[in-house]
Amino acid sequence: MEGMYIVQVTMPQFQAPGTKRARLTEQHETGVGLEALDTPCLVLDLDRLDTNIRRMAELAAAAAVRLRPHAKTHKLVEVARRQLAAGCDGLTVAKLGEAELLAEHGVDDLLVAYPVWGERKWERLCRLAEAAEVRVAADSFEVFAGISAAAASRGLSIPVRIEVDTGFARCGVQSTAEALALAQRLSSLDGARLVGLISFAGQTYAAGREGAGAAAAADAAWLVEVAGELRAAGFEVPEISVGSTPSAPHLGKLAGITEFRPGTYVFSDRDQVALGWGTLEDCALTVLATIVSRPTAARAVIDAGTKTLSSDRAITAEGYGAMRAQPSWRLASLSEEHGVLELPAGEGPIGTRVEIVPNHACGALNMHDWVAVVQHGEVVDWWRVEGRGLVR
Amino acid sequence: MEGMYIVQVTMPQFQAPGTKRARLTEQHETGVGLEALDTPCLVLDLDRLDTNIRRMAELAAAAAVRLRPHAKTHKLVEVARRQLAAGCDGLTVAKLGEAELLAEHGVDDLLVAYPVWGERKWERLCRLAEAAEVRVAADSFEVFAGISAAAASRGLSIPVRIEVDTGFARCGVQSTAEALALAQRLSSLDGARLVGLISFAGQTYAAGREGAGAAAAADAAWLVEVAGELRAAGFEVPEISVGSTPSAPHLGKLAGITEFRPGTYVFSDRDQVALGWGTLEDCALTVLATIVSRPTAARAVIDAGTKTLSSDRAITAEGYGAMRAQPSWRLASLSEEHGVLELPAGEGPIGTRVEIVPNHACGALNMHDWVAVVQHGEVVDWWRVEGRGLVR
Repeated sequence: MEGMYIVQVTMPQFQAPGTKRARLTEQHETGVGLEALDTPCLVLDLDRLDTNIRRMAELAAAAAVRLRPHAKTHKLVEVARRQLAAGCDGLTVAKLGEAELLAEHGVDDLLVAYPVWGERKWERLCRLAEAAEVRVAADSFEVFAGISAAAASRGLSIPVRIEVDTGFARCGVQSTAEALALAQRLSSLDGARLVGLISFAGQTYAAGREGAGAAAAADAAWLVEVAGELRAAGFEVPEISVGSTPSAPHLGKLAGITEFRPGTYVFSDRDQVALGWGTLEDCALTVLATIVSRPTAARAVIDAGTKTLSSDRAITAEGYGAMRAQPSWRLASLSEEHGVLELPAGEGPIGTRVEIVPNHACGALNMHDWVAVVQHGEVVDWWRVEGRGLVR
Repeated sequence: MEGMYIVQVTMPQFQAPGTKRARLTEQHETGVGLEALDTPCLVLDLDRLDTNIRRMAELAAAAAVRLRPHAKTHKLVEVARRQLAAGCDGLTVAKLGEAELLAEHGVDDLLVAYPVWGERKWERLCRLAEAAEVRVAADSFEVFAGISAAAASRGLSIPVRIEVDTGFARCGVQSTAEALALAQRLSSLDGARLVGLISFAGQTYAAGREGAGAAAAADAAWLVEVAGELRAAGFEVPEISVGSTPSAPHLGKLAGITEFRPGTYVFSDRDQVALGWGTLEDCALTVLATIVSRPTAARAVIDAGTKTLSSDRAITAEGYGAMRAQPSWRLASLSEEHGVLELPAGEGPIGTRVEIVPNHACGALNMHDWVAVVQHGEVVDWWRVEGRGLVR
């Protein structure tokens, strides 16, 4: 992945015979500055990325909890490698396709934090479990029984965690009694064995910067209490897993947990900055765009819309992204390929470049097949977003 | 594209040497029913697609206007072929990459309805103009001058249209006086020649079903009036182009226009049904998903979130999609890979399949690399979304 190279993006398999060749091969140049990149372009700053990775690894080490970052944010094998090299104990994924990709690249400890359902997926899960250590989190006997049947028929036993709903109102058992009942039913399964509990405290986002610490503490306390009841009933519950980026600054106060699963920190974004993870300057993933229209004195249009940034709204702010060099400009609305900027009269003629910190890095990354990798303002590599499009 | 075949989706170029092969090759089967498809899965119904295509072609023919559908909606070469075969006069695109893809497949009349900016793009535009008839719409002398310089140096003259802002407040000149001034400056350019006017009346969406007709009529009248002033000043303005799907039912009443550019009609979606384009039953593009969690009596979670449906909100309704077979179920919120359904107690056990009509078909399509093509409930093909990811 080093040195200068040119990736020729052509799709010969879709070339109908006899048609004209109109497309200029897109050149993924290295050794150039940001100003040489055509827009819109997704850009990843290596030093900021590594700073975010190191910072989270240090927080987890200081709190003596295992770190298992969520790879859904980046879908990039190279970022996974850097997370593992900086000291984490495995990775989390949302999709079997993401797990398969990472396992193929040597990641040998994975948590599928998603209820894996259906014969095809259970078969894939078993194949995966033969290549790597794979845990699955779910909240129902139906899912665990399906996994178990597929696994037992292959002589496997899949370690599983029960997901507890600690207030986000998405997945998860609703009470300690439900967790106990599910744990008891799990005991009857040959191909799935209970190893822990998991929660996703999305409510830390809604709580905002001031409330995130209390929300994270309540989430962890809930899970630890359920674990205590399970242990009192004779179950071993070695793994208690919580976390997302907004709870990271409060990690040292989450007594009793064993594992932390933040995702977005690796890039950070406008939401995470609002919630307390560094500053806009620390955000590693940005979108370069260009002003292509100036219809009025106060309105400009850039070549980045929902198909470049995603239509994810900001949690605690208006608008669709922050302009890194023009903080007073407001990205007021997006169409699919247009972004409408409100800006002071006289600023931003056509051709002006902007660098946008997205509201939500996971959503923006997922719109792109390629990211330009930069260091000290120079393009040093292009990474293909290998995990994008693996929808199952 | 006919018959049964299996596409082997592997990415050998990203296979690190020596790593384990964990991934099951994804099989794109044909000759099976929808129930055999693993979820989430994007599905396109051929008969509904063809009905939408034919219906729009008939409306345009009845109104005696040229039809130039916007291909950003589908990004699919095969859909473009069907639109052209049913009787349209060319296609519209938002990106040079989309234009290049279509030109390579023999589409020889294209409108880039976007301000093309920068040396690289002007070079690509000229290459494209050597392979196909290509028009460009923009609203500034800067953009037209750049195009002209690149074109003239290659002995080309690019036909261009001036975009007029008729009330949507995105791109476009703001007045007849501005249009006249721009037309006059255009006369000095050797490589760009004025051939018409264009508008995008996004306000027809905001006007809703009752107001869409009046909004469409006002948009067309505005553009026709500007054209009249330009003609009075001695400019030829043969092409007056308006339209989007919500204005289609009112097409016969838009006097003076010469071209219509709807996009979403080809699939239709929840928004378009609300605005008057057919019924939910007519929507050709859906997402198959499965209930994977039933945490409470009134809540289910499906395996389709913003990375499957997009986070595009509905214009005139709550929620993130309509359940085709369960109209009372409400898709209340989305995370990246989760959709939270509100449903009556006792309905929808784990494993229940749902077919979702997305809020916005363009956004949902753009999340997928592959679409399963079905006819009479049977999978007859898989089409790769060739245009997805061509962000520039």
